[in-house]
Amino acid sequence: MKNKILKKEVINIFRKFGLSNGHASISANALINAELVGAYGHGLSRLKMYCDRIKKRVINPKPKIKIKNISQSISQIDADNSIGFVSADIGIKKAIKNAKKTGIGMVAIKNSGHYGLSGYYAEQAVKKNLIAMIYTNAPPAVAPHGALKSLFGTNPICFASPSGSSVPFILDTSISMINRGKIRVAARNNQKIPEGVALDKYGKPTTNAKKALEGVQLPIAGFRGSGLAWMVDILSGVLTGGNHGGKVKDPFDDFSGPQNIGHLFIVFKSNLFVKDFKSRIRKNINIIKKLPKVKGVKEIMYPGQNKFKRFKKNQNKKIYVSNVVKRDLEILKDH
Amino acid sequence: MKNKILKKEVINIFRKFGLSNGHASISANALINAELVGAYGHGLSRLKMYCDRIKKRVINPKPKIKIKNISQSISQIDADNSIGFVSADIGIKKAIKNAKKTGIGMVAIKNSGHYGLSGYYAEQAVKKNLIAMIYTNAPPAVAPHGALKSLFGTNPICFASPSGSSVPFILDTSISMINRGKIRVAARNNQKIPEGVALDKYGKPTTNAKKALEGVQLPIAGFRGSGLAWMVDILSGVLTGGNHGGKVKDPFDDFSGPQNIGHLFIVFKSNLFVKDFKSRIRKNINIIKKLPKVKGVKEIMYPGQNKFKRFKKNQNKKIYVSNVVKRDLEILKDH
Repeated sequence: MKNKILKKEVINIFRKFGLSNGHASISANALINAELVGAYGHGLSRLKMYCDRIKKRVINPKPKIKIKNISQSISQIDADNSIGFVSADIGIKKAIKNAKKTGIGMVAIKNSGHYGLSGYYAEQAVKKNLIAMIYTNAPPAVAPHGALKSLFGTNPICFASPSGSSVPFILDTSISMINRGKIRVAARNNQKIPEGVALDKYGKPTTNAKKALEGVQLPIAGFRGSGLAWMVDILSGVLTGGNHGGKVKDPFDDFSGPQNIGHLFIVFKSNLFVKDFKSRIRKNINIIKKLPKVKGVKEIMYPGQNKFKRFKKNQNKKIYVSNVVKRDLEILKDH
Repeated sequence: MKNKILKKEVINIFRKFGLSNGHASISANALINAELVGAYGHGLSRLKMYCDRIKKRVINPKPKIKIKNISQSISQIDADNSIGFVSADIGIKKAIKNAKKTGIGMVAIKNSGHYGLSGYYAEQAVKKNLIAMIYTNAPPAVAPHGALKSLFGTNPICFASPSGSSVPFILDTSISMINRGKIRVAARNNQKIPEGVALDKYGKPTTNAKKALEGVQLPIAGFRGSGLAWMVDILSGVLTGGNHGGKVKDPFDDFSGPQNIGHLFIVFKSNLFVKDFKSRIRKNINIIKKLPKVKGVKEIMYPGQNKFKRFKKNQNKKIYVSNVVKRDLEILKDH
C-alpha cells in the first residue's frame, strides 16, 4: 500500500469515528510522521487505541476547543478532551503567532490527551526561526527517587532550535532510563536488562526483566532525573489545570474517563538578543562536531539529526505495516 | 568569628578591590549563602579567585551595566564584565518586574561571569509566587556524547516553583555525573570512582580516578544528558550573545580575558492558568511524599528541601572557616 493511500485510509477511519476532515487529517499526519522518523511506538500501532477511546467517549471527536488570551504573549486552551494531536497543533500554532507578535509566546493546554512526539510540534516553530520548549506529562511509568511505586510519566523534555542548516536541533528526551516496551521484550526472550534501569518489587536493583516488570522503572540520573520529571509534571499538569501527581490515565488500559493531559508550549524568537543567531549556532555545532571522537564513533550528532536522517531515508519508501496493524485497519474500516 | 563579622569582612575586601558598597554586599551575601546551604564549592573558597580576577582586570569592579527593554516582557543586559553575582541579581530582579507587569519575564545577560548557585536567584522569584527557569553555561568539564574532549560546562538546569509551603521547590541540577573536585579527592586518596561517570584518555570507561583526571567526565544519562547540556549552551550562550562552544574560560586557571558567561532567566506567574496553584502543588507534593518508599529511605524529598534544611540548621551556627580561607582573608584584607 502506498503511503499516500495509507494516510488516506487513516483519515477515513478517523472521519468514520466522528472527527472532522481537518482533525482527521492532522491526526493522520502525526501518526504517519511517527512511522517515517522511526518512532513506531507513536505511530500506527496506536490508531486502534485512539479509535477505542473515541468509541468509549473518553476522547471527544467533536470538541469545542476554547482559546483564551491572557495577554498578547500568553494564551490558555481548554481542549475539551479532543484527540491530543489536534490540541497540540492548535497550541503550537497559537504559541508561534504570539511569539511572532511579541517576541515570546506561551500556551498552556488542559483537557487534552496523548499527542505523540513533542518534537513534531517543535519543528513547526523551528521552521519559522523560533526556539521552542515543550512539556507534557504522561501516565505513571517511573518511580520518583526513593519511591517504590511508579508515578511520573516518561515526561519528555523537548527543546528545539534553528541549527543554521536544514536539519533542526530537536532534543526530545524521555526522563526514563528505559522504555517499558523494551523490558517486556527482554522478559519474553529471557534476556537481561541493563544495570541501573529498574528495581524489583522490594526496591532492589535488578537486571532480571521479569522482576523489573513487577517492580519500577528508574528515572535517568537518580534524584536529578527524578527532579526533571517532577518539573515536567508541575509545568504541564499543576500549572495548566491538567491532571498531575500520577492521575493521568493509561490510554491503552484505562477507559474510565478522559486523560486530561496538560501541555505547555514556550516559543520565542531566536534573534531576540543577537542579530546573527544562525551563524552563531552553526559555529557552535561545527566546534562540537570537530572534537576528537571516542573509538567507534563516526560522527558526533546533535539531537534531532538521527530522526531527520531516518525521515529522509523513509520518506519515499513504503511504510512497513505489521500484520497486527493490518488487522486493526481492516476492523476499523468496517466499523 | 561571628557570621555577621565574617560577612562584613568579605564586604570590606570586595570594597578594597574596587566594588561599590552595593555590589560588595550583593557578592558577600551570595558567598555566605552558599556556605549556609552547604554548597562550599560556591562559597568562601572562591573569594580569592574573584579578587584575583578583579586585580588582573578580567572582572570589572566598576561596570557600566546596560539594560535594554526589547518589550515589556523581554530585556537584555550587557553586564560589562561585572562580577557574576551582581549581573545575576539585576537580571532576576528585572525578570521578576517584567513578569509582575505582563505575566512573563525573560532576561538575557551577556558579558557576565560565574554567579554561584542558580537556585539562590530563583528563590527571589518563588518568594513572589513566580515560577523561574534559569540557565547558565560554564567552563568545559563534560564531554559531549561521543567526544573525547570536555566542552560543555556542568551547565546547570534550574527550575523553581512555589510549593505551597515555606520550603520552595528548587531544582538546581548539574548535567555532569560527578563533580571534578570529587575525582581529585579520590585520586589523592587512591580511591575508585563509580562506574559510568568518566572515560580515560583513550575513551574507555574507567573507575580509576587518576586515569579519569586525564580523560573526560561524562554527562548524566549519555546522549540525553549531553543534549540537555547542549540546550543550556544554546540558551545561555548562543542566544544571549555570551561565550559558547567551550569558549567560557576557567575562572581559576585562565586570566587571559573576561569569561563572558551568558545567563537566561525566564520567570512567570504561577497562577496564570489556575486560581488555586498553591493548593494544587501542595496536593501534588503530598501525593508523592505518601508513596511507598525504598528500604532505608525515610522521606521522599522534593528538590530544594535538603538545601533548605541545611540553611535552617546552619543559620545560627558559626560558619566553619578553613585554614586556607583564613589565610586568603588575611592576605586579601591587607591588599
